[in-house]
Amino acid sequence: MSADAAPESGTARIAVDLLGGDHAPAVVVDGALRACQADPALQLLLVGPVEASDAVLGALDPADRARVHTLPAGLRGPDNPEPDVNRVESGVRAAVLAVAQGHADAVVSAGNTGATVSSSALGLGRWPGVRRPALAAVLPTAAGRLILLDVGACVDPDEKTLAVHARLGAAYASVVHDLAAPRVGLLTIGTERGKGDRLRRVAPGVLAALDLPAGARYAGLVEGDDVVTGVRADVVVTDGFTGNVLLKGLETAYALVRPPSTGEMPPRAAILLGVGGTVVVCHGAATGDDVADGIALAAALHRRAAVPAIADLIQPQAAAQENPRGGS
Amino acid sequence: MSADAAPESGTARIAVDLLGGDHAPAVVVDGALRACQADPALQLLLVGPVEASDAVLGALDPADRARVHTLPAGLRGPDNPEPDVNRVESGVRAAVLAVAQGHADAVVSAGNTGATVSSSALGLGRWPGVRRPALAAVLPTAAGRLILLDVGACVDPDEKTLAVHARLGAAYASVVHDLAAPRVGLLTIGTERGKGDRLRRVAPGVLAALDLPAGARYAGLVEGDDVVTGVRADVVVTDGFTGNVLLKGLETAYALVRPPSTGEMPPRAAILLGVGGTVVVCHGAATGDDVADGIALAAALHRRAAVPAIADLIQPQAAAQENPRGGS
Repeated sequence: MSADAAPESGTARIAVDLLGGDHAPAVVVDGALRACQADPALQLLLVGPVEASDAVLGALDPADRARVHTLPAGLRGPDNPEPDVNRVESGVRAAVLAVAQGHADAVVSAGNTGATVSSSALGLGRWPGVRRPALAAVLPTAAGRLILLDVGACVDPDEKTLAVHARLGAAYASVVHDLAAPRVGLLTIGTERGKGDRLRRVAPGVLAALDLPAGARYAGLVEGDDVVTGVRADVVVTDGFTGNVLLKGLETAYALVRPPSTGEMPPRAAILLGVGGTVVVCHGAATGDDVADGIALAAALHRRAAVPAIADLIQPQAAAQENPRGGS
Repeated sequence: MSADAAPESGTARIAVDLLGGDHAPAVVVDGALRACQADPALQLLLVGPVEASDAVLGALDPADRARVHTLPAGLRGPDNPEPDVNRVESGVRAAVLAVAQGHADAVVSAGNTGATVSSSALGLGRWPGVRRPALAAVLPTAAGRLILLDVGACVDPDEKTLAVHARLGAAYASVVHDLAAPRVGLLTIGTERGKGDRLRRVAPGVLAALDLPAGARYAGLVEGDDVVTGVRADVVVTDGFTGNVLLKGLETAYALVRPPSTGEMPPRAAILLGVGGTVVVCHGAATGDDVADGIALAAALHRRAAVPAIADLIQPQAAAQENPRGGS
């Protein structure tokens, strides 16, 4: 892929980490194929071993092959059967670099979340005021869609990080899910005073004093059941450990039975908020369909210029203009 | 109720905290009634305001009233409309004391979990080696029933507490759920080395070296999805914050849609393991049905002498006899 390939209107150029995920590269190859076949305006930059990108190219119709470009990285083959963490990570690093250098519009990886987050922060930069980016997932609820963050980028946050994530989640809800005045809740285990762990005892005061973007308001403490019903909050903030466990539990429950809403299931992929580019993370256990959904999500986010719009809402100046009380 | 009322075979005398729960005493009154009507060998000791126990007595058939005894505690009436934490707690303290003094066989409360745990530890004593009791809940899975602990008694455990809870959960699975050689997993957010937070990075080494009772074995790291599928573990150990969030999320998902198994839903109530008596905790948001299920669970646990049997399995001597390697 050449550096000067200007994206057409509607075109989305997605860098795909072929080596990310528990079942890579097979499921990633499968997902890339499905995504390419489903979206004629999609261009893929396959980052990883040549054998894997050859598998995608070989399975595509000749007419579609022109939309697939390759970037060899992170070898894993007969001579090197065990994935080497540094080499595997180099796949996502190379994919992020492709976005930073303008060769792709977004990154999709099902690889190690920590490696994706650190590669993205390093390669794309973090937004002012964002020390710890957040992974945001979307869940169906009986009352509509709900945004849960963080779901694995930051497992040991402090209350200041939760406050930044509350602002990121509110902006994301407004820009991508068209939610007017989203309600932001803090996940805990009881709404009486003094319930929860140390973090959940100090965070409510910080969140209540926060200027949230997009007309959002802090809706107070919510519990695990509220993430299912959606009646008390549109955006739910938590640490990445709890968020990841709850997300995987609920997604699997909805896959085995059925979701609580009648609408389509949201993609089983999360967006990384707070870095200077579009980064989508699929589960390590992603299937080919999940990877295809992740690629489609990345393309949709790029096409609506979601990440720059969220960044605009998050800027402290923007918050101050919106809210004459200023950054109290 | 007199102190010398000897329980008949099959009789279960349950002390019910009338003031515990978000919607107390109404839902507790409702639950007590339902439980009493469903089980003719049940005797209830209603602990709380006289008005509430009168409501239960008034709604029962005269023949059933002899099975209901009352213990006035924790006033909340027209003169004192706002619940006072000390008075509300005194309800569960009085209920625990009734068990400690032999007036009841088990306690059921939907009140503040912390108050129930501390009252139980103080009033009934803790088992040797158990500094932090664990609340254990049962969830349906596609593969059978799964025991999740802790679900709210201990929100900031260290790795030693997780190890004790692993032993408690294994013994409970064996005694109450007749699971031979239960598989005990540690809940985390990824099975690669180094994933998870600080606690989850140190705990696996401690759990792997543990002598588990009842022929149980440590099955390694599991994730949120494994709590739904049940394919990798029968007992899942986690901190009380994560466990509570996941439990409330999954229970609500299963209530709104349907559980992943074809069997009956387990009761939405948890048993407190590690104290010298049978203590069942219902959610603060429990319905009358939930309270009735909690009472039925407490009665069933008493009738099969589950708590003494679990305590026997947990004793360090018992573990040493079972496993000639000793307490390595």
